[in-house]
Amino acid sequence: MSDNVQLIPGNSLITATPEEGRMLAIKMSRLIIKATQPDAAIREKLRPVYAEDPAMLIAIGQTVAIEFATIAAANKYWVK
Amino acid sequence: MSDNVQLIPGNSLITATPEEGRMLAIKMSRLIIKATQPDAAIREKLRPVYAEDPAMLIAIGQTVAIEFATIAAANKYWVK
Amino acid sequence: MSDNVQLIPGNSLITATPEEGRMLAIKMSRLIIKATQPDAAIREKLRPVYAEDPAMLIAIGQTVAIEFATIAAANKYWVK
Amino acid sequence: MSDNVQLIPGNSLITATPEEGRMLAIKMSRLIIKATQPDAAIREKLRPVYAEDPAMLIAIGQTVAIEFATIAAANKYWVK
Amino acid sequence: MSDNVQLIPGNSLITATPEEGRMLAIKMSRLIIKATQPDAAIREKLRPVYAEDPAMLIAIGQTVAIEFATIAAANKYWVK
Amino acid sequence: MSDNVQLIPGNSLITATPEEGRMLAIKMSRLIIKATQPDAAIREKLRPVYAEDPAMLIAIGQTVAIEFATIAAANKYWVK
Repeated sequence: MSDNVQLIPGNSLITATPEEGRMLAIKMSRLIIKATQPDAAIREKLRPVYAEDPAMLIAIGQTVAIEFATIAAANKYWVK
Repeated sequence: MSDNVQLIPGNSLITATPEEGRMLAIKMSRLIIKATQPDAAIREKLRPVYAEDPAMLIAIGQTVAIEFATIAAANKYWVK
Repeated sequence: MSDNVQLIPGNSLITATPEEGRMLAIKMSRLIIKATQPDAAIREKLRPVYAEDPAMLIAIGQTVAIEFATIAAANKYWVK
Repeated sequence: MSDNVQLIPGNSLITATPEEGRMLAIKMSRLIIKATQPDAAIREKLRPVYAEDPAMLIAIGQTVAIEFATIAAANKYWVK
Repeated sequence: MSDNVQLIPGNSLITATPEEGRMLAIKMSRLIIKATQPDAAIREKLRPVYAEDPAMLIAIGQTVAIEFATIAAANKYWVK
Repeated sequence: MSDNVQLIPGNSLITATPEEGRMLAIKMSRLIIKATQPDAAIREKLRPVYAEDPAMLIAIGQTVAIEFATIAAANKYWVK
């Protein structure tokens, strides 16, 4: 892990809207991959592999869904 | 990620019924794939691959189940 | 997705008993696959593939377990 | 799915102890496989396949863990 | 399943510390595999397979994470 | 499992910030792999395998997401 990677932009799970919560979930899941594989050149090489592989795209969707569950709970589902 | 993709239709997790919550879960899981692979032509090419692969269909089902868990909690399970 | 598929029979997560909740979890997980692959002939062709593949049977079990967690919470675990 | 399969022994998630809750989780996960593949002869044939495949054994463990999470919550973690 | 396997050491999810909770999660996940494959000789044969396979090591990590979530909730996260 | 591995640094799930919670999630997921494969030389050999395999990187992301869900709940999502 590179200690230099910021893992949660803004260092907060709180967002103004569900849409922003969803964007945060995507970013957080990508930053874990960045922390595990800090070499940008290798990550660039892997991108077309997963982006054209339906099983990997589905797995990315599962990961984002799990991250989003946490963010949504933190925001009490954005219900007022 | 394409910044132009809307990730949650209506920008809300609240739905009138469980059925609509389920439809939202399906849409949200698809929009993550769209955000990860913004090229519609490639997505079209991948569709028959996963739609005829039982393991991938099951994995899609898992993803929707996870998304739905969050939506159902947000709606307090639609119990009055 | 076919818009004609009903995704939650009865449009409710509430069931009289845990057993019925379990049956609902199975149905809900199957209806997602039906929504993703609306062609009944293709689904019929896939059935013997997953029904004789232990890894896929286990994955189906995981999906049902996740759906059931939501249904059980909705029913407050059927505890009186 | 065979309609004759009982999916939850005793039709209750409540158990006297964590150990019994764990046994229920194992049974519930197996009954989903039985409901999906009702042919006992085929299930017998599959048993040695998954029982000697470490990846499948791990996946079974994941499924039981998910079932157990629901049972443990139903029993308020057996804390008095 | 061997009925002789104890599935939860001490028959309780309560531990003194997070570290002990983590150890319990590891033990509980292993005991499911022991219950599914009671033959110690076969389990010994499988050990080097998963212990040198990164995908399986990651899957073991996922299983322990799920078990630990339940244990942590049971212990109210060890917060006083 | 090596009994010498510390599984949770500091023996606490409580962190000052979400960013630190995320770092703890990464560490906890790695320590499970260390406990399962205590031989550092073998772990070193496996590192380039998973770090250049997109499916494994995604699976690592899923594991961290599950660990983080528990840590975030323990910290009440760092909301004051």
